Amino acid sequence: MLQFSDISKAHEIIIGHVHRTPVLSSRSLNAICGAQLYFKCENFQKVGAFKFRGALHAVLTLTDAQAGRGVATHSSGNHAAALALAAAMRKIPAYIVMPQSAPAVKQKAVKGYGARITFCRPTLAAREEAIAQVLQQTGAVFIHPYDDEKVICGQGTAAVEMLEQMPPPDVVIAPVGGGGLLSGTAIAVSHLCPTARVIGAEPKNADDACRSLHSGNLVPSIDPQTMADGLLTSLSLRTFEIIRRHVSDILAATEGGIAMAMELIWERMKIVVEPSAAVPLAVVMEHPDTFKNQTVGLILSGGNLDLARLPFRPK
Amino acid sequence: MLQFSDISKAHEIIIGHVHRTPVLSSRSLNAICGAQLYFKCENFQKVGAFKFRGALHAVLTLTDAQAGRGVATHSSGNHAAALALAAAMRKIPAYIVMPQSAPAVKQKAVKGYGARITFCRPTLAAREEAIAQVLQQTGAVFIHPYDDEKVICGQGTAAVEMLEQMPPPDVVIAPVGGGGLLSGTAIAVSHLCPTARVIGAEPKNADDACRSLHSGNLVPSIDPQTMADGLLTSLSLRTFEIIRRHVSDILAATEGGIAMAMELIWERMKIVVEPSAAVPLAVVMEHPDTFKNQTVGLILSGGNLDLARLPFRPK
Repeated sequence: MLQFSDISKAHEIIIGHVHRTPVLSSRSLNAICGAQLYFKCENFQKVGAFKFRGALHAVLTLTDAQAGRGVATHSSGNHAAALALAAAMRKIPAYIVMPQSAPAVKQKAVKGYGARITFCRPTLAAREEAIAQVLQQTGAVFIHPYDDEKVICGQGTAAVEMLEQMPPPDVVIAPVGGGGLLSGTAIAVSHLCPTARVIGAEPKNADDACRSLHSGNLVPSIDPQTMADGLLTSLSLRTFEIIRRHVSDILAATEGGIAMAMELIWERMKIVVEPSAAVPLAVVMEHPDTFKNQTVGLILSGGNLDLARLPFRPK
Repeated sequence: MLQFSDISKAHEIIIGHVHRTPVLSSRSLNAICGAQLYFKCENFQKVGAFKFRGALHAVLTLTDAQAGRGVATHSSGNHAAALALAAAMRKIPAYIVMPQSAPAVKQKAVKGYGARITFCRPTLAAREEAIAQVLQQTGAVFIHPYDDEKVICGQGTAAVEMLEQMPPPDVVIAPVGGGGLLSGTAIAVSHLCPTARVIGAEPKNADDACRSLHSGNLVPSIDPQTMADGLLTSLSLRTFEIIRRHVSDILAATEGGIAMAMELIWERMKIVVEPSAAVPLAVVMEHPDTFKNQTVGLILSGGNLDLARLPFRPK
């Protein structure tokens, strides 16, 4: 099982290549929530998301022989851009399988880093077939978005920095999709600040991790519909085991709550975050008793979204 | 005439009460513009705009007798919120004259700081009449949004900080509406970095300052139509004189250029800025030869806008 020392080593490996993103706070958000909130701004990370930490760690720890074959993944989101940039930095090829339906802006970002894109139909079966074919043709090393120890360790480095940048927290909240970020965060926090609880934040409309933790059985996410498009995936056995051991609870937020939390972050903190990144604040606002008067670290996971399509309403 | 020492004194007075906002840069924006750009993020200032510096300086330098009468102004924008907060901090009344048409969100902000709002019809005559009546009834001290030495000195403190936070610039660009920020910036830069040019940035659709500087006569701004709603006002004789002495040029940007610059700042820097704040970057992008390979300081003036009404287009 992964140890904190693995995250610590990952941090040493990537530290010169990732941004040490700031931790921000807002008096008015603290007043609204009745808690002391500290936001780790991974929206300012390279490629605009924490995903760069894990992808870079995975790429930098390949042997030269492995690296020479290039890396591959399937993702329509931040992991694709992160792996593409990490591969470009090591000057090796990146092969990305993306659904045809991926937003043009994300396709452009991945191409901009020089990755080769293979498009597939937007189904699980088509994706699996496409990635299998790419791996066979290229011999590239598959880097899973979250079911990968190197990736999990890289994601955990955000929490390591956050704990150095804020007072000792009572709670740390990270969003959970596949569970890579939450797993890394939980291992880091349980070692560095063992009195703090670690809580996962999930959309109610994609609450498979919540149901998995409460039932003790891995429940898959089936066709979830949420604006938090970074949190659609299901836990893996690996992330589920880590979460069961180190995470206190997983709490869910409504779509309306996520949109409101996102707008508050934009309006009060003047920073751009994507819907998935607003889920931890939405959880705080929808569970006020749980967080009252607590010191809370929240990971703002990313800032990539289509600016022409925002869920804000006129006031 | 105002001296740098006046700005220096203003900085000492307000320094414990304003945020020392960060200076950010973006590799991808530098690549796009072919220049080294440093952005002074006054969108992170209290009330979300540089205006707080000038309003606070004006309020803190009132005698106790003056302060006891309270302060008043007319503004539907950032100066209103800035004066309201500054007055609240000194625990004195603030009286704000606002057009009935001011956005609800701005009315709410001003009320939230405890100011008393007098509404008027959205014409110059109605506004003048309303403010005259408020001043007569209350005896409050009128704090003009920009035609005021204390205000100008306060605004100049943003440039003082920026020059400490970046390499020596070849050019500093500030947006220009009434000219308070540009005047303070020009006095500060011409003293601290005399080799640097200071350039004003203005919407083409409200280019009265540009025409004033080029013709040598103060040209008023008549019913301008621009999304940069902080830059609608005309220069005063006071700001015009300072600008003539210390500003190299005023360059204008199109509405399309302002929208594109704003979107690039949001997308690449992950920060929320209002249209007026994007005008300096728009000027750089529309005058590439002027800024090629230069080190440029740009003041991002504020981050207050209606998030439900953005000028971005689907990609």
